[in-house]
Amino acid sequence: IKRKHSGKDLTIFSEMTALAQRNNAVNLSQGFPDYEVDDRLKKLLAEGTEKNFNQYAPMSGLPVLVENLITFNQTRKIPISLFKENITISPGATYAIYTALAAIVNFGDEVIVLEPSYDSYVPAIEMNGGLPVFVSLKNDFEVDFDMLKNAISEKTKAIIINSPHNPSGKIWKKYDWDQLASIIDSTEIIVISDEVYDILTYDENEFYSAFHHPKLRERCFSIFSFGKMFHITGWKVGYILASEELTLAYRRVHQYLSFSVNSPSQYALAKYLEIFDAEENQKNMQQKRDFFLNEFKNLPFSLKEKAEAGYFQVLGYENISNISDKEFAIWLTEQAKVATIPLSAFYHEETNTGMIRFCFAKKEETIADAASKIKNFLG
Amino acid sequence: IKRKHSGKDLTIFSEMTALAQRNNAVNLSQGFPDYEVDDRLKKLLAEGTEKNFNQYAPMSGLPVLVENLITFNQTRKIPISLFKENITISPGATYAIYTALAAIVNFGDEVIVLEPSYDSYVPAIEMNGGLPVFVSLKNDFEVDFDMLKNAISEKTKAIIINSPHNPSGKIWKKYDWDQLASIIDSTEIIVISDEVYDILTYDENEFYSAFHHPKLRERCFSIFSFGKMFHITGWKVGYILASEELTLAYRRVHQYLSFSVNSPSQYALAKYLEIFDAEENQKNMQQKRDFFLNEFKNLPFSLKEKAEAGYFQVLGYENISNISDKEFAIWLTEQAKVATIPLSAFYHEETNTGMIRFCFAKKEETIADAASKIKNFLG
Ligand SMILES: CSCCC(=O)C(=O)O
Ligand SMILES: CSCCC(=O)C(=O)O
Repeated sequence: IKRKHSGKDLTIFSEMTALAQRNNAVNLSQGFPDYEVDDRLKKLLAEGTEKNFNQYAPMSGLPVLVENLITFNQTRKIPISLFKENITISPGATYAIYTALAAIVNFGDEVIVLEPSYDSYVPAIEMNGGLPVFVSLKNDFEVDFDMLKNAISEKTKAIIINSPHNPSGKIWKKYDWDQLASIIDSTEIIVISDEVYDILTYDENEFYSAFHHPKLRERCFSIFSFGKMFHITGWKVGYILASEELTLAYRRVHQYLSFSVNSPSQYALAKYLEIFDAEENQKNMQQKRDFFLNEFKNLPFSLKEKAEAGYFQVLGYENISNISDKEFAIWLTEQAKVATIPLSAFYHEETNTGMIRFCFAKKEETIADAASKIKNFLG
Repeated sequence: IKRKHSGKDLTIFSEMTALAQRNNAVNLSQGFPDYEVDDRLKKLLAEGTEKNFNQYAPMSGLPVLVENLITFNQTRKIPISLFKENITISPGATYAIYTALAAIVNFGDEVIVLEPSYDSYVPAIEMNGGLPVFVSLKNDFEVDFDMLKNAISEKTKAIIINSPHNPSGKIWKKYDWDQLASIIDSTEIIVISDEVYDILTYDENEFYSAFHHPKLRERCFSIFSFGKMFHITGWKVGYILASEELTLAYRRVHQYLSFSVNSPSQYALAKYLEIFDAEENQKNMQQKRDFFLNEFKNLPFSLKEKAEAGYFQVLGYENISNISDKEFAIWLTEQAKVATIPLSAFYHEETNTGMIRFCFAKKEETIADAASKIKNFLG
């Protein structure tokens, strides 16, 4: 059977989690929490099924969830003119990225991808007949807008942005969005913006959505993840903000691809939006990042940039070894019993960077355990 | 934005359910139950989230669910050589059909569709660059195997089978599968078999899966739905049986399309498989079909075939009116306050058949209410 994309048969996340399990290693690779989920969220899921939210939700989403998302997004100043025609619930953000691409990409269209990037983008582009065009981020994970501009051709249909960025935790500032807006102003390029770490921002950093931007709002899909927002990656529910026209195109695919999303989860998420404390969520996660940095600061890794947001911290291992990222990550799992993600996995050509990515969305004891295992191993 | 398929912007199921709501009509259109879900299933969902099945399940499915599906399928004599490499959990059966097509269809490939058929097949074929080739079922919804044979060309990549059949409730017998196997024996055609009503068979009718058939097992995807099996259409979980090679191709798409499936639901379904009573389930549903037939027998509809399986009964309205299927269904919703699905919606050219489809997966009082509303209206 002919392959439909250039991606791997097993994602790096499945591979490293399996390797962690086989080696009984602390798993700081795949991005999922090991701490307790808010009890209220569990109770609400039980309540959802109890109250008979067990049959098909409407194709676009459960009305109470859509309503509460309008309120939630208005509160953070995403345009107050947000209607239900701008929101669609999806079975996860990965699905939303694929479906947005399926909605707009035609055979031979080019889609720009900034590298390093999440591993589903390129397969999703290719499966829909598109051609990925790669632009490397600078060493500090900032965008070189001249390079981006040069990558645009007559065939460019879309560009995928990811802010806060996985793996680096970098946030696109208003300045970056302005640059992008001016570069694509005279084109019809659509922005697919993966914003799944939106509410997990640290220090003085603020999240700015593509959908916040007056010049981009009409031509973007902004994609969000309840899994990451509420630390329930296994629920697989996300949502998409888009103009009415893009929403229509999206739903045209969605309704024949999966039709609707897990109803009891949608009920629980709707109710949880009414009570959850975004500030406390942020504080807890920032504390984890700081705890991680503190535990790792005396280990021989190099820190180029503190994560501004999200679940991950990238560190350099050039003071420990000069083997490839992947070899280093495997070695660290097998020998030190700590699993991470090699940064090369975020490049289509597996570019070696001398860096690995740690997930700090873990209990403090897990982070401390990882640090002490590495310390003991390196001696 | 260019359309990627010839399907409608709003499915007939969304359309008729919305029309039912606006008209305060009894909704026998879209296929979902209005009776209570088994309490044990609700408790198991609560238990799943409580026991912390809240993070990513493995891409192919939660191990306990996969294990229990092996046992379940062995019990009903689907080959005892079933391994975890033959099973993948999906976010619903509609998704599984799309993903199977995405895994195997290349640009310009033909895929045979037997009409009438479920409305997602054609858009899913077209979105993946394939061309649907239509073969009409006979008036009694049996297959004309000569026509099927004639529809096969060098470009035929796959054929979609649906048994038990939606809308007719017809089951493919061993004979039908033998015919199909012999027709495609000398080809490499893959069978995508939508078998979501597998365990809901009535009278002396027995379900026979494509995966049961020794000549088809190596070249089919058999697709199942917990939503239909357990009357929880809103949970959106299904599963796929396929050979190791086809499973690999399927997962190659799946892991970049949505990656994994709602974890608490997977836990609950796994545990429920250990306790649910298939015979009672069957008996309850057969009773509903019989109750429906009895309530409707004095109304001026014609019954060509009793549903052998599934959620639906097709009836003719030629004694009431000769307007189009769609007009009749709308009229019945608006005037008699009973919503159904026009059979024309299952044909790519909206062929009028003089028939509509009723969903009898409802409480007896709902079915009785529908019958009495129609009776009162027709006078
Ligand atoms: C779907 S597995 C990948 C999870 C994730 O977001 C990551 O680890 O980058
Ligand atoms: C996904 S809505 C359609 C449900 C169904 O299976 C039917 O009514 O045929």
